Amino acid sequence: MKDIDGRAVAKALREEVAAAAERLREGGTVPTLAVVVPTDDEGTAWYVRSIAKTAGKLGLDCRVVQLEEPGRDEIVAKLQELSADPEVHGVICQTPLPEGVSLAEVGWYISPFKDVDGANSESLGRLAQGRRTFAPATSAAVLELLRHEGVRLEGARAVVVGRSTVVGKPAALLLVNESATVTVCHSRTKELAAVCREADVLVAAVGRPRMIGAEFVKPGAVVIDVGTNPTPDGGLVGDVDYEAVAPLASAITPVPGGVGPVTTMLLLRNTVEAARLALEHP
Amino acid sequence: MKDIDGRAVAKALREEVAAAAERLREGGTVPTLAVVVPTDDEGTAWYVRSIAKTAGKLGLDCRVVQLEEPGRDEIVAKLQELSADPEVHGVICQTPLPEGVSLAEVGWYISPFKDVDGANSESLGRLAQGRRTFAPATSAAVLELLRHEGVRLEGARAVVVGRSTVVGKPAALLLVNESATVTVCHSRTKELAAVCREADVLVAAVGRPRMIGAEFVKPGAVVIDVGTNPTPDGGLVGDVDYEAVAPLASAITPVPGGVGPVTTMLLLRNTVEAARLALEHP
Repeated sequence: MKDIDGRAVAKALREEVAAAAERLREGGTVPTLAVVVPTDDEGTAWYVRSIAKTAGKLGLDCRVVQLEEPGRDEIVAKLQELSADPEVHGVICQTPLPEGVSLAEVGWYISPFKDVDGANSESLGRLAQGRRTFAPATSAAVLELLRHEGVRLEGARAVVVGRSTVVGKPAALLLVNESATVTVCHSRTKELAAVCREADVLVAAVGRPRMIGAEFVKPGAVVIDVGTNPTPDGGLVGDVDYEAVAPLASAITPVPGGVGPVTTMLLLRNTVEAARLALEHP
Repeated sequence: MKDIDGRAVAKALREEVAAAAERLREGGTVPTLAVVVPTDDEGTAWYVRSIAKTAGKLGLDCRVVQLEEPGRDEIVAKLQELSADPEVHGVICQTPLPEGVSLAEVGWYISPFKDVDGANSESLGRLAQGRRTFAPATSAAVLELLRHEGVRLEGARAVVVGRSTVVGKPAALLLVNESATVTVCHSRTKELAAVCREADVLVAAVGRPRMIGAEFVKPGAVVIDVGTNPTPDGGLVGDVDYEAVAPLASAITPVPGGVGPVTTMLLLRNTVEAARLALEHP
């Protein structure tokens, strides 16, 4: 078994992003990510601070736009304002959203050109069509880790556990586009462990701590754990029971230190890319 | 084994669509479908004539817009013009398209409000998000037939063979939204027959005549054949080897007389729905 070192993958990306950001700054453009935060959730605040800190180190500006108990219309207005602001290149909207507001709906108001976390239905549709677009960063991180490990996806059986719009479905579509044979599982799947054991590549994105045990994993499978479940002591634990699964897997992402750091880096890479595209196609 | 009678399903839909069209006409609105035909392909011409004929019988207008050797820009301009025309409620673009032009790209110029065959990436993204939208009519017909047969999809294993943007992927997304456990197979899938044998519901959308034989089908499975491959004698044959598979399946769609008639009817139902929405939200 081999740990897939997300921090090392992030480090390689970091240099690429920092270099691209520097080239843009030399040309007078400061690549800028705007993060709309419609919640006072502490976990979200922690995550946003970590994005802002990493952005700063890499030469990007990060505008954190905190909204106090906003309604749907206030969130939409802010996303539209930022989408129209020529000094902003990437726009993301954090969750959780207020009761009755869905990211799928408000995400539409993020310009597809600035939609660096793939929240707009237009972006998701282009992804499904196999066209160039910004994919949701977490799903893109899954693919980036697999690519970095040299995992052959063509013809491989991939099983994605979880069918959310932000992770499970886009990860499945990306894997289909890479010619894997892809199965999407979820809470209604029968004999889930048996279905998961069909996987050469198993992607866990359910949000249930340590749910995926040894009986879910075919010996030699590659396991990507998207889960980031908070523990009572303030730590994080994945959807995969790492201790039980690691001896079986040929490679596995730890939590923390797997998908997370790569996700943040891809958000920033997308922002730099959006800034570059804005210059080329004003 | 039971034949799933697509013509009977279409007949039930037909009465619903005709009644809705009549209500609209009584209110002074003639529900109108525009079909852009950018090819002189004989199969396409035949299909378009059959849509126009059925539309007429149901009280819809059908405008066939034949383009002679058009370039990409001419097709786009026509789709934009029809999207802006208040007397047109549904717009579809037939294939094959000229070399180098893709439906995924030109489909974007069909207004999502008139996109009755789900060609716009926005429509496909909304479908992936599980939101209300016009799905590609063929993929919607697969679900309509399963619903009509009372096939329980929640927790069922569904296998879709084919990953096209117009059928395979949207059918897979619709099945996931219905809580099936869905596997997408394609030309790179290894041991395709074995994977297909896992299916309680098998959807064949490959475009290869009689490719799916008995060894692909678990006894008792429901088989939906999306294939419409022309035969030398001017007939149609499916992707499924009907004679070999029918004795195994619990239910199967014949070709012709399965998915095809339902697809046409759903296009027309979507057009009437688009006309109704245009009245309600002008």
